[in-house]
Amino acid sequence: MAQDDSTLQFDDKGNLRHLLSLQGLDASLLTELMDEAEGYLTAPGALPVRSQSLAGRTVGNLFFEPSTRTRASFDLAGRRLGADVLNLDVNTSSRKKGESILDTIYTLEAMQVDIMVVRDASDGVPAYIARHVAGHVSILNAGESDVSHPTQGLLDLLTIRQHNPDFKNLVVAIVGDIQHSRVARSASEALQTMGVGELRLISPPVLAPSEGRFPGARIIHTLAEGLKDADVVMALRIQRERIGNLDGVPGIDEYFANYGVSRESIKVAKPDAIVMHPGPMNRGIEIEGALADSPRSVITKQVRNGVAVRMAVLNRIGKMMSMR
Amino acid sequence: MAQDDSTLQFDDKGNLRHLLSLQGLDASLLTELMDEAEGYLTAPGALPVRSQSLAGRTVGNLFFEPSTRTRASFDLAGRRLGADVLNLDVNTSSRKKGESILDTIYTLEAMQVDIMVVRDASDGVPAYIARHVAGHVSILNAGESDVSHPTQGLLDLLTIRQHNPDFKNLVVAIVGDIQHSRVARSASEALQTMGVGELRLISPPVLAPSEGRFPGARIIHTLAEGLKDADVVMALRIQRERIGNLDGVPGIDEYFANYGVSRESIKVAKPDAIVMHPGPMNRGIEIEGALADSPRSVITKQVRNGVAVRMAVLNRIGKMMSMR
Amino acid sequence: MAQDDSTLQFDDKGNLRHLLSLQGLDASLLTELMDEAEGYLTAPGALPVRSQSLAGRTVGNLFFEPSTRTRASFDLAGRRLGADVLNLDVNTSSRKKGESILDTIYTLEAMQVDIMVVRDASDGVPAYIARHVAGHVSILNAGESDVSHPTQGLLDLLTIRQHNPDFKNLVVAIVGDIQHSRVARSASEALQTMGVGELRLISPPVLAPSEGRFPGARIIHTLAEGLKDADVVMALRIQRERIGNLDGVPGIDEYFANYGVSRESIKVAKPDAIVMHPGPMNRGIEIEGALADSPRSVITKQVRNGVAVRMAVLNRIGKMMSMR
Repeated sequence: MAQDDSTLQFDDKGNLRHLLSLQGLDASLLTELMDEAEGYLTAPGALPVRSQSLAGRTVGNLFFEPSTRTRASFDLAGRRLGADVLNLDVNTSSRKKGESILDTIYTLEAMQVDIMVVRDASDGVPAYIARHVAGHVSILNAGESDVSHPTQGLLDLLTIRQHNPDFKNLVVAIVGDIQHSRVARSASEALQTMGVGELRLISPPVLAPSEGRFPGARIIHTLAEGLKDADVVMALRIQRERIGNLDGVPGIDEYFANYGVSRESIKVAKPDAIVMHPGPMNRGIEIEGALADSPRSVITKQVRNGVAVRMAVLNRIGKMMSMR
Repeated sequence: MAQDDSTLQFDDKGNLRHLLSLQGLDASLLTELMDEAEGYLTAPGALPVRSQSLAGRTVGNLFFEPSTRTRASFDLAGRRLGADVLNLDVNTSSRKKGESILDTIYTLEAMQVDIMVVRDASDGVPAYIARHVAGHVSILNAGESDVSHPTQGLLDLLTIRQHNPDFKNLVVAIVGDIQHSRVARSASEALQTMGVGELRLISPPVLAPSEGRFPGARIIHTLAEGLKDADVVMALRIQRERIGNLDGVPGIDEYFANYGVSRESIKVAKPDAIVMHPGPMNRGIEIEGALADSPRSVITKQVRNGVAVRMAVLNRIGKMMSMR
Repeated sequence: MAQDDSTLQFDDKGNLRHLLSLQGLDASLLTELMDEAEGYLTAPGALPVRSQSLAGRTVGNLFFEPSTRTRASFDLAGRRLGADVLNLDVNTSSRKKGESILDTIYTLEAMQVDIMVVRDASDGVPAYIARHVAGHVSILNAGESDVSHPTQGLLDLLTIRQHNPDFKNLVVAIVGDIQHSRVARSASEALQTMGVGELRLISPPVLAPSEGRFPGARIIHTLAEGLKDADVVMALRIQRERIGNLDGVPGIDEYFANYGVSRESIKVAKPDAIVMHPGPMNRGIEIEGALADSPRSVITKQVRNGVAVRMAVLNRIGKMMSMR
């Protein structure tokens, strides 16, 4: 995201208007969003928190890439705040007919879809849309190429804070296909803003990030070194199509042996280290199934926090809209 | 539509029961529907109008052809009136299993889906269904082959009236694949009913309508002649698959040069002429992108009016139902 | 279903928690569910019954096999009780990405989807899921391989009771591909529990059930013998892909001549015998179209009862949840 994109996210009173990236969101705003999200959490089995803060508003889910979990998470978050949620399966209709993405957006805008949740495989699409929509429309990035996935970053941050709010003394290790991971990018941005003690990015050399992509992070190629004394271990999803098919990318068994986060490999981390994964998991590739199901795994907590942070963001956007 | 189909649309008290075609709807009914639709329009950024006039009713969206905009428009229209809307992806399930269309309809009827919105690629399907459903069920045609698209006709009529309500003195020019256009058919029917001054249909000879298909309209093959002094210019979507692939249908560049509605070609029209398009647009084929984005374009207004006229139709049907 | 699966369906107070199979539901529970379903029936054209008994709850429709009618039926049942219903098109997303079914379930659980409606082509999936979900989650089987389809069994039972509640004196004949039919399995279990007079299963030898699959039923290979004096005749859907393609399975014409339920073949049944079919029908294969449309057909009544029994089951589950 270019520097001006992060200012694009705020209206002229400084309120969050679009959520395109976690760059440009300062520690106090991240903290407010996490605090509000905490208020949306209820115990398993209890009824979810509901409000009517978005009643009358229409949220459009525009997923140009398939997704179950993120789409469902935004869908439920919107509905639990009283919004009408319109799910558009954009692969199978207008785009086939050759309509430009902006014309799709203008169409939704004319239908009074005031909040658009966008996932797209191309760089810069959410910011591009945000620059072109009418002044009363907000864009939420739900996954953008390998660039950004800000609500994922927020839920990861919240999950880490629930484990230990003392970011300055935390060692966070992210393991996997760093180069192609929007999850790593957004988590990293949020953690840096919170002043994380140490951020380590662990991958085979061929999947390491390009120069300057993760300022301030330590790039590591050996799992044992990367996990040593870590408080938080986040395994990333490995695209099966990359495994063994790229020069220097190991096959499944070799990958798991060298970079798999497992009960064995995690022994060098802090005794109470938590294990995270953005899902969907490839058990036995990037993460051992038994570890994912163990008490130190906070993977389903991440999902639960996901709905809550999306409610927090949507509610904030809705409030901003109703103050106009 | 056969003559008796237009009477099929009304119940024995003369109330609108099905909307299959704009044939048979007289000027006063068209005017009432437009007037009611106006009441559903709010300013951009304002909350959409909502009511509970369809509360408890179930609207089924049965799209046997893919669609984003029309489906979404009916979906939002129904929900904003308090209905439950059931979206059925009919391509991928029962029809694959060989079920007849009437059996699908009877199934929905048994589930108390009392209003069915139907899009189908075959001639006569909405009227066929309307003849077979139970007495308490209403059918709304959401696009029927190249025959009819009545809510599109209504929204086009409303958009034209917003520009200039004096239909008798208007020259309306529709440009493109007239022969295959249900949009042209429904707009033409509505405009004739309102006593439009002059209706011109402009296309290459090979895409001109067959004899008698558009009674009272002038068939023209030269764009400059067709747009001369026009008040309203409506460009139709050209199916990419037809371009350059049919005898006598020009390629893209040639089509745009000869029939493209552009800032240049529209110069012969009235200085305040509006530009319409039913969407989705092929920019650079049937319409110049810069013209579509210019102040004289009312294309997004059409979309906005689309939700409003669908609310008007649904509300009227709902009222008729509750008076039984 | 293994014996312990039927106990798995109840919580420690003996309340119905999951609906995996009709095995293990005794006659009084079946009767209570049918009685409650009756309360959800209204006259055609009247508004459907609505309540807020599931308000705040989220129902997830997880269909790993395509379905229109069962999915729509659960969707409407849930919404008419005030639930949020999340429809997941599970074919096109996470499963493609290789996620395990349990991880999908845990994800939904974390999103507070407390009632999951599951259809799957494999044996044992609903019970497998039920064994792994958190204590506050309920699983409803919406069709499991050729094993079980309990809400279909319930709606069939209710439809038969509406015809004649004296199960002990009824002869019920099920005709078609018995071996592969989950519909026949669930109907048979329910009917046996209610002490049906006689249950006959009629099919070509190659489609007859394997030994012990339908305890207490009479296996018959001649239609005239099977329909003789029957009170209820249920035709099963024949998979077109099986017809004529398996050793011993007749072609379409031969199948209809020998096993088609028709005005002609049904003459040997009781004069007031009803005709049932789970849908979607292949008219002219397993059932004659004219018979399906005749007054003795209760096929659309089955669909109507389908929504009602699903409301009854959902409402019961909801009550159980709110008593915790």
